[in-house]
Amino acid sequence: MAVTGPEIERLIQLLSKLPGLGPRSARRAVLQLIKKKETLLAPLAEAMAVAVDKACICTICGNVDTQDPCTICRDGARDPSAICVVEDVGDLWALERAGVHKGRYHVLGGVLSALDGVGPNDLHIGALIERVQKGEVKEIILAMNATVDGQTTAHYITDRLEGTGVAVSRLAHGVPVGGELDYLDDGTLAAAMKSRRPF
Amino acid sequence: MAVTGPEIERLIQLLSKLPGLGPRSARRAVLQLIKKKETLLAPLAEAMAVAVDKACICTICGNVDTQDPCTICRDGARDPSAICVVEDVGDLWALERAGVHKGRYHVLGGVLSALDGVGPNDLHIGALIERVQKGEVKEIILAMNATVDGQTTAHYITDRLEGTGVAVSRLAHGVPVGGELDYLDDGTLAAAMKSRRPF
Repeated sequence: MAVTGPEIERLIQLLSKLPGLGPRSARRAVLQLIKKKETLLAPLAEAMAVAVDKACICTICGNVDTQDPCTICRDGARDPSAICVVEDVGDLWALERAGVHKGRYHVLGGVLSALDGVGPNDLHIGALIERVQKGEVKEIILAMNATVDGQTTAHYITDRLEGTGVAVSRLAHGVPVGGELDYLDDGTLAAAMKSRRPF
Repeated sequence: MAVTGPEIERLIQLLSKLPGLGPRSARRAVLQLIKKKETLLAPLAEAMAVAVDKACICTICGNVDTQDPCTICRDGARDPSAICVVEDVGDLWALERAGVHKGRYHVLGGVLSALDGVGPNDLHIGALIERVQKGEVKEIILAMNATVDGQTTAHYITDRLEGTGVAVSRLAHGVPVGGELDYLDDGTLAAAMKSRRPF
């Protein structure tokens, strides 16, 4: 039975496809949007239209931006000799928020996964090797998630980079800052113990 | 430090104002939207623009729709003699999904709350009394949330309707269907016991 107009039903249906929103929260969001039509719905519609028009993927690193090459690849103050390899754009943004990497990035677009049928040709690994072969790169920092697939991908990339002469490193495993030992899994504790540092 | 274009930052910032989305989930949502630019972002931008243009509040009952009076108030098959009074449009939609009310609705736009400074004049109570005084209404069903403020509002409306001759009822309190007694609060159990029915 129709409760509201078909245009509003369609908006709810589209919003509920966003990650983190189900049908119920999409309905709540739409009611909120219509309540704040001028201050929220109209600017959001406008911002989305602009994004449709301008958003693009950086052809060098795979970052999402409104210019190509992206803000990071254009930034001359960044060290072009260190490339941090991440699974997804979200990981790149997370590292940037932390401000821990002053070089460039390379987004793979996923990880190798036998189960999901993702092979090396489905990821941007070839483009990474090409960037390395251009000669400017001295270090590759592998910042994949600490999952089995992430680490498999890291191993694969290390193999592919053999003979190019670049240094390959990966993020340290260990106790998260603020973490309590009692709540950590055995694997993390073992990694933290193995990589212990002089105090 | 800029990671992406200002237009995308603005989209993230606006999306994070939606209920149920924080900055992190808004970023995930935006990445998803840009990944599915043609199938999700563009239709969503279009649907929002249409909603800006068409969405309105029904001047009779307060429902959100794209026409005024709304779909429900226009529907001749609905019983105009029974009005179900709800706090918000979301509650109206919830009752419609359940398909349990075949009459009309009246959205108050909130509940009386001394703490939040919400008085009778801040709610659409006057309009409800006017609808009743037109004479067609025979029953008012109070479907406020089972909170203290909701029940206070229900009592207030009952007082205001005194002398108009309409029957006033409220939703039953009791054990939710599928609920387990062990997990229910004392108030619900007491209400369920008090309103027990012959089996």
